[in-house]
Amino acid sequence: MTKKRTTSKAAEVAAGRVGVDIGGTKILVALVDGDEVVTTRKRSTPRTGVDDLVAAVVEMIDDVEPAADAPVGIGIPGLVLADEGVVRSSPNIDGIDDDPVPIRQLVADATGRRVALDNDVNVATLAEHRLGAAVGVHNVLGVFVGTGVGGGLVLGGRLRHGPHGLAGEIGHSMVTHRGGEVCSCGRFGHLEAYAGRAALERRARAAHDAGRATVLIDIAGKGRMKSSVWAKALAADDELARELITEARDALVAGLISVVVTVDVDVIVLGGGLASRLGEPFRVDLEQGINDALFADTSIEVRWAMLGDDSGAVGAACLLD
Amino acid sequence: MTKKRTTSKAAEVAAGRVGVDIGGTKILVALVDGDEVVTTRKRSTPRTGVDDLVAAVVEMIDDVEPAADAPVGIGIPGLVLADEGVVRSSPNIDGIDDDPVPIRQLVADATGRRVALDNDVNVATLAEHRLGAAVGVHNVLGVFVGTGVGGGLVLGGRLRHGPHGLAGEIGHSMVTHRGGEVCSCGRFGHLEAYAGRAALERRARAAHDAGRATVLIDIAGKGRMKSSVWAKALAADDELARELITEARDALVAGLISVVVTVDVDVIVLGGGLASRLGEPFRVDLEQGINDALFADTSIEVRWAMLGDDSGAVGAACLLD
Repeated sequence: MTKKRTTSKAAEVAAGRVGVDIGGTKILVALVDGDEVVTTRKRSTPRTGVDDLVAAVVEMIDDVEPAADAPVGIGIPGLVLADEGVVRSSPNIDGIDDDPVPIRQLVADATGRRVALDNDVNVATLAEHRLGAAVGVHNVLGVFVGTGVGGGLVLGGRLRHGPHGLAGEIGHSMVTHRGGEVCSCGRFGHLEAYAGRAALERRARAAHDAGRATVLIDIAGKGRMKSSVWAKALAADDELARELITEARDALVAGLISVVVTVDVDVIVLGGGLASRLGEPFRVDLEQGINDALFADTSIEVRWAMLGDDSGAVGAACLLD
Repeated sequence: MTKKRTTSKAAEVAAGRVGVDIGGTKILVALVDGDEVVTTRKRSTPRTGVDDLVAAVVEMIDDVEPAADAPVGIGIPGLVLADEGVVRSSPNIDGIDDDPVPIRQLVADATGRRVALDNDVNVATLAEHRLGAAVGVHNVLGVFVGTGVGGGLVLGGRLRHGPHGLAGEIGHSMVTHRGGEVCSCGRFGHLEAYAGRAALERRARAAHDAGRATVLIDIAGKGRMKSSVWAKALAADDELARELITEARDALVAGLISVVVTVDVDVIVLGGGLASRLGEPFRVDLEQGINDALFADTSIEVRWAMLGDDSGAVGAACLLD
């Protein structure tokens, strides 16, 4: 479970920091020293409330044996007030739903360390900006297309949070003004309701139940329609899969155009399980769609995210700059 | 043509500045001193190219008799690179279409003064932030619904331009991912194609030509469908007017939601001829729509713009801070 290796691009991460990536299913903790990920710990996320979650994180921090004064950065899914160190809501973490939870303070009290907290997708975007696909780029949108659609925004080299912590939450931008599909949040017409894998599966199963032929059902078998299922169905020239993925692309174009004309960016960094699995044709098609739909004669580049599984923890360590 | 009066909220504007508001039909120049608009000049915009435009502006600046060291702020419609003092394109100003024009340098050379240049809607938003509806508010979107739909963005108390000068151009955000109406820019599905007065008139006339009954045509007579025409048709309970204005509202909700989840703001300032004429029911309806469609339990306030006809020139003077 412990590994030691060099992360070649991690030169900007200062020595002796701990990065914590809290996910819905697992927690990853990394000790980062200079340009090296010295050691990591990984375990499943407790589903028994905030106290157990904090206890697990604190134990894992101790386990990587950081220096006494090493600070801790934490990335966590959900709506985070970074300046206050509080998670407002996090549907995928047990015990954080209605009431805001001061995770930063809880971990700081238990460890005696300086702690920074941010949303997991913000952290992933920061990691790409500091160490990955967008090093040296001042204005970056990170968009991660997986089960849902997450986004993070770096403006002038710094993560943008906004007064309510909503900045970068582009999965909930509106890509149609005429009702539209229902989103995971319960509202209608949001980007995630067209481009997230969970929404795509729901729509595919509904179409199949209504009599539409598709290989998606057979390929998925008894499991979820994972990203590989969609890639295989496209390779088999499945009409429904093609239709839904094309609409996902169109929805992403609409959502990303709105970002570009709102705040303007140099580069869009694209990541997430579904986008990665659909691969280069999907990225090229998305980039082309954005530049065709943009009112100005300006070209916006869409680049692949470069960092892998450790990026959440390494990015969390970047919060401490 | 010369007037002297106190602009009570103008306290933040330092003494001895010139603000220039270049519009498609008129140019307004104001000498601003302390909290007073000392004097203004107004004339029609030359339609004979950039040289005549610059000559007219320079003459009007001299006419308001500024101190020798008084700097000049200029607001102009179109795509402006503020940092470079260049207008990339401006469909409504004669002589600025394909090639970028260095207006800042041209006026600076002709006057020997320090000159700042920005987009007219950015300037109007800045004016509301410094002197109007959003004084003391750090993150503000200004949205102006008139012939078209313009926007300006203040983040952390400063105008956001972005690396390509696209920031705040929310009239060209996408409010549908499925084709949609054609925009003034030639692309499809943009906000302005649903909520701008020119687009609304085009759609109303097309519906009428296709046999749809509406009082809009009679009220407009031989003229344009001005904002008052729409207000009268709504008052007469005209079905087509109601339908199109409701869709304009829905499109604005979609466009503004995308802004809020991209960058997050404290307040949205609403202005422009059409919005003002539709009045308080329109603002309330828009605000309600935004807060219903927003994924988070956060309330975003929509306030009326407060500044009147001089706001462009007074706001341009604010560029010099």
